[in-house]
Amino acid sequence: MASVRPLQQLLIEPVATLIEELSRLPGIGPKTASRLTFHLLRSSETQSQALAQAIINVKDQVTWCTRCFNIAMSDLCPICADSTRDQSRIVVVEEPLDVLAVERTEVYRGLYHVLHGHIAPLEGIYREHLRIAELLQRLQTEPVEEVILATNPNTEGEATAYLLLKDLAPWGIRVTRLARGLPTGGDLEWADAETLGSALQGRREIA
Amino acid sequence: MASVRPLQQLLIEPVATLIEELSRLPGIGPKTASRLTFHLLRSSETQSQALAQAIINVKDQVTWCTRCFNIAMSDLCPICADSTRDQSRIVVVEEPLDVLAVERTEVYRGLYHVLHGHIAPLEGIYREHLRIAELLQRLQTEPVEEVILATNPNTEGEATAYLLLKDLAPWGIRVTRLARGLPTGGDLEWADAETLGSALQGRREIA
Repeated sequence: MASVRPLQQLLIEPVATLIEELSRLPGIGPKTASRLTFHLLRSSETQSQALAQAIINVKDQVTWCTRCFNIAMSDLCPICADSTRDQSRIVVVEEPLDVLAVERTEVYRGLYHVLHGHIAPLEGIYREHLRIAELLQRLQTEPVEEVILATNPNTEGEATAYLLLKDLAPWGIRVTRLARGLPTGGDLEWADAETLGSALQGRREIA
Repeated sequence: MASVRPLQQLLIEPVATLIEELSRLPGIGPKTASRLTFHLLRSSETQSQALAQAIINVKDQVTWCTRCFNIAMSDLCPICADSTRDQSRIVVVEEPLDVLAVERTEVYRGLYHVLHGHIAPLEGIYREHLRIAELLQRLQTEPVEEVILATNPNTEGEATAYLLLKDLAPWGIRVTRLARGLPTGGDLEWADAETLGSALQGRREIA
C-alpha cells in the first residue's frame, strides 16, 4: 500500500479510490490496480457497467447452500437440489472452487460438503471455524455410506483430513481419501520425492 | 477462456458472470478471476459495494483534460488548472500513468501532454490515433519553450519520439529527451549492453 499514498496526492479522487479498492483484492498490488483502473477508464461504458453489476449481483443473489455450504442461489445448491445424484457419498472439500474441480472430472455423481477452510492454528483457524459440526449433523439425517476426504494435499489439508478421520471413526462409515501419485502428463524426472514415494506405495496391478 | 466454459455449466449464473467479466480485464485469466470472485463472495457487503461503486464513479466522473489529455474531472486536469506550474515546458508521455511516474520524482513543475499510445503500424496504430495534432496545436497558442520527450525507452516509444522530433523541428523550440543510463540501485554486472553503452556515451564530469 506504500506506493498508493503518493498517487492519491496526484490523482483525482475517483481514480485514487478505484486503485485503492482494487488493491484490497488478493494478489493485486498497487501497480496492477493502477493498470486495471486505467484499463477501465479506457474501456466502454457497457463493459465497466457489466463488471460493477456483476459484483453487486454476486453479493445480492448468491448465498451458501444450507446443506453442503457450496454456493447457492436458494436454500440448496444445484447439486444438493438434484435428486438423481448419489445420496450415499459425500466428498469433503475445503472451498467451493474445489467442488468445481471435482465436478470437472465427470467421474463423481455424489454429494459434497464444503468446510470453508482448513485447520491452521497459527492463523487462528480452529475446527469450530469450519463446517465440521454440520458435516457430522448430516451423517445423522442422510443415508451416507462413504465420506471421501478431498482436502488439499498439503500440510493444512492433511491436518484437517486427520482431524475429520478421528471425528468420523465412531460413525462406522467408510472413509476414503483421494489417491496420491504421479500427476497425469507429468514427468518422472521432475516428480518430487514425496509424490514419487506415494506413487510407489500406491502402485497397482496392471489389469 | 477455454476453462470458463465448463465452469458455466456447473456454476450458478451470477458467479459465472462475474468470473467472465473479471476475465476480460488485462492480465486476469480464468483462474485468477475465479479466485477474485470467491474472495468477493466471502468479503463484506461494504467492500464489494465500495468496489462496484468505485468502478461506476470512475466512468461517470472521470474524463480527459481538453488541453493535455491527462485524466480530469472537469475541463482541465489538476496540473493544467494549476497556474503556478511552469507553462513553458511540456513533457510528452504515452499514458496518464506516465504523468504520475514523472510527478512522483518531484523534480518537474511544468506541463504534460498525453499521447494515449505509441506508434505501432503492425497493430494498426498510426500517428492519427495519437494526440499529436493536439500537441502541435498547443505550440501555436501556448508559450512553449521546451518539449521533453518522455515516451517509453523501447522500440515503439523510440519510433514515436523520432516521429515527434520531425514534427517539432520546424517550430524552432528546444526538444529534449530523458537521459539514458544505469538505473539507480541497479547492478553494473546485470546491466544490459544497450543500457551500459548509453551510460558510457552519456557519461558526465563529476562536479
